[in-house]
Amino acid sequence: MTAFGFQVEATSGAARAGRVSTAHGEIETPVFMPVGTAGTVKAMLPGSVKATGASIILGNTYHLMLRPGAERVASLGGLHRFMNWPGPILTDSGGFQVMSLAGLRRLDEDGVTFASHIDGQKVKLTPESSTEIQDLLDATITMAFDECTEYPAPHQKAAESMRLSMRWAERSRNAFRARAGYGQFGIVQGSTFEDLRQESAEALTGIGFEGYAIGGLAVGEGQDEMFQALDFTTPMLPADRPRYLMGVGKPGDLVGAVMRGVDMFDCVAPTRSGRNGQCFTRRGTVNLRNARHRDDPRPLDDECACPACTDYSRAYLHHLIKAKEILAAMLMSWHNLHYYQQLMRGMRAAILGDTLPDFAESFASAQRAGDIPPL
Amino acid sequence: MTAFGFQVEATSGAARAGRVSTAHGEIETPVFMPVGTAGTVKAMLPGSVKATGASIILGNTYHLMLRPGAERVASLGGLHRFMNWPGPILTDSGGFQVMSLAGLRRLDEDGVTFASHIDGQKVKLTPESSTEIQDLLDATITMAFDECTEYPAPHQKAAESMRLSMRWAERSRNAFRARAGYGQFGIVQGSTFEDLRQESAEALTGIGFEGYAIGGLAVGEGQDEMFQALDFTTPMLPADRPRYLMGVGKPGDLVGAVMRGVDMFDCVAPTRSGRNGQCFTRRGTVNLRNARHRDDPRPLDDECACPACTDYSRAYLHHLIKAKEILAAMLMSWHNLHYYQQLMRGMRAAILGDTLPDFAESFASAQRAGDIPPL
Repeated sequence: MTAFGFQVEATSGAARAGRVSTAHGEIETPVFMPVGTAGTVKAMLPGSVKATGASIILGNTYHLMLRPGAERVASLGGLHRFMNWPGPILTDSGGFQVMSLAGLRRLDEDGVTFASHIDGQKVKLTPESSTEIQDLLDATITMAFDECTEYPAPHQKAAESMRLSMRWAERSRNAFRARAGYGQFGIVQGSTFEDLRQESAEALTGIGFEGYAIGGLAVGEGQDEMFQALDFTTPMLPADRPRYLMGVGKPGDLVGAVMRGVDMFDCVAPTRSGRNGQCFTRRGTVNLRNARHRDDPRPLDDECACPACTDYSRAYLHHLIKAKEILAAMLMSWHNLHYYQQLMRGMRAAILGDTLPDFAESFASAQRAGDIPPL
Repeated sequence: MTAFGFQVEATSGAARAGRVSTAHGEIETPVFMPVGTAGTVKAMLPGSVKATGASIILGNTYHLMLRPGAERVASLGGLHRFMNWPGPILTDSGGFQVMSLAGLRRLDEDGVTFASHIDGQKVKLTPESSTEIQDLLDATITMAFDECTEYPAPHQKAAESMRLSMRWAERSRNAFRARAGYGQFGIVQGSTFEDLRQESAEALTGIGFEGYAIGGLAVGEGQDEMFQALDFTTPMLPADRPRYLMGVGKPGDLVGAVMRGVDMFDCVAPTRSGRNGQCFTRRGTVNLRNARHRDDPRPLDDECACPACTDYSRAYLHHLIKAKEILAAMLMSWHNLHYYQQLMRGMRAAILGDTLPDFAESFASAQRAGDIPPL
């Protein structure tokens, strides 16, 4: 059996290129994890997700526990088999979605009680039950159950919330069933306060996890605040463990965060934006719903190797979006995931070649230059 | 340049196995044409449509003329290039959709004036404009513009409607621009009246087309009436030209119609039903939305080679449907199209081996036996 592990292969400034070993395969970092909320990366076949270069995906404990149910997934052989993704899967703890999606929440020391957004049924999540559910799902990487502190939060409130999450982190760790090739990550909280992040990082490293996530960012604080928080938070985390910035982000966020020492990311942006006709490209964001593309025979990006760019014109993609065709969601999601993976591969190569600052400058200048002019 | 042509390779009773040669490739018959209404077979990539075994698809003139517009498709290189389907494409004439989808229709000797279902814009279709639009789309097979007679219709009304369609057929033929490898099909009308079908068939063969379609069936008359109409209609059509039964049908319709001498079919059933969780299988129709599949680890059909059947459990497919995931539509459409193509391949092989009656009996008995029992 493969042991769960992380090797740093190269650094460039604070950025690292590494390799996570798991029971379900290796993950080259920095890595972007497509989000497979309810047991599917929306509008994508697993083979297509793999074809974009993705090596690990994320599943949402909150969604899966409510439907189809963790016990059912377990009895069907676990999430890998259920959704036909044999590679590594990271599951979140469910805490974030409880706060953003469920109704009638009540939080106490023990956990969170809430009403399902599907049928209103009353459900309770605790560090212990969240960990057990992730075990039933057969998550390669389990996340500790935490409270994602709202932004903005006064220091006192951020401190109380973070300390609750740290008590929950310890309970999550105690509930985690160690298995070869499986890991559990703790989540640093503390909002944008350096002293609280420090206290949180020390608490978590004191407990000891296979990796460390940074939570409570990308919640409305803006990119500058987020980068500042990363500047002081990533150095608090052990260099020999992967660092995961949760729920981030747009392409520029990824580049900035990798330069600040983050190894792992997840975000619904590529798939959600794809379903809305918004495409991420090396020339910035292109909204194919816009009428300027109606007669444009050119590809979205003539250097992109995804099917949307190699097989179709902007005019066709625009047509699919206007006609509300499912193929629009399929092709745009594919393109966006392909672009994200391409970006991560580019950063990894630049770290290995110690040219990351050049890469970042080229990236930023191409993004600033914007899309090709209309015909 | 390949000439448009049809070769009968074998017969079994009234059934024929043949080969249509076109500018865009060969079509083995009997053939089922997936419907690509608005320039996409819904929820399918063209490569996946091809992978099911499809050799020709259908495009809807009505939808495409309204959005994105025939001139636009032409300026983008034609429908094949626009939608990335290099193979043969048959386009309908638009007449049927005008009657079923458009508002405020007015029909006169010249054609049909109607209000677009998209923006209410007033549009006119005539035999000449329908033919020109299909030319702009670069249709491999163009359909004559006709009126699909309502069912039931009294003899007098069916006769008048059919005779209008025959005058329109002559105008359609005059408007058709002959090109090597391209063809145009006339459409027999006459409701369920043998004398009218005879008059219509004679009118069309007098004009002369590359193929002959049977219209005005599958409009509510039921399978028995439809088969009776086929029994007397197909022998009226030239043996050396392909015969196309429009808008048909369910698997049992296809088998019965092939046995009555039909070569070509189209129907939205596999894709539309697929989007609703209804699956066609050799054991009959299976509705995966049904709760009996919730915990079922077995594939939809353990002998089917499509991705839905080889990679997933019924429980997973049920989950996708309940969660309204796009992947549900993708996988169910793929399965249904795969099943239809498999069925057509089976019939073709049976005609070539002169075992079609046995094939039809096995088909009917497996359909009657129904789905595997719940676990």
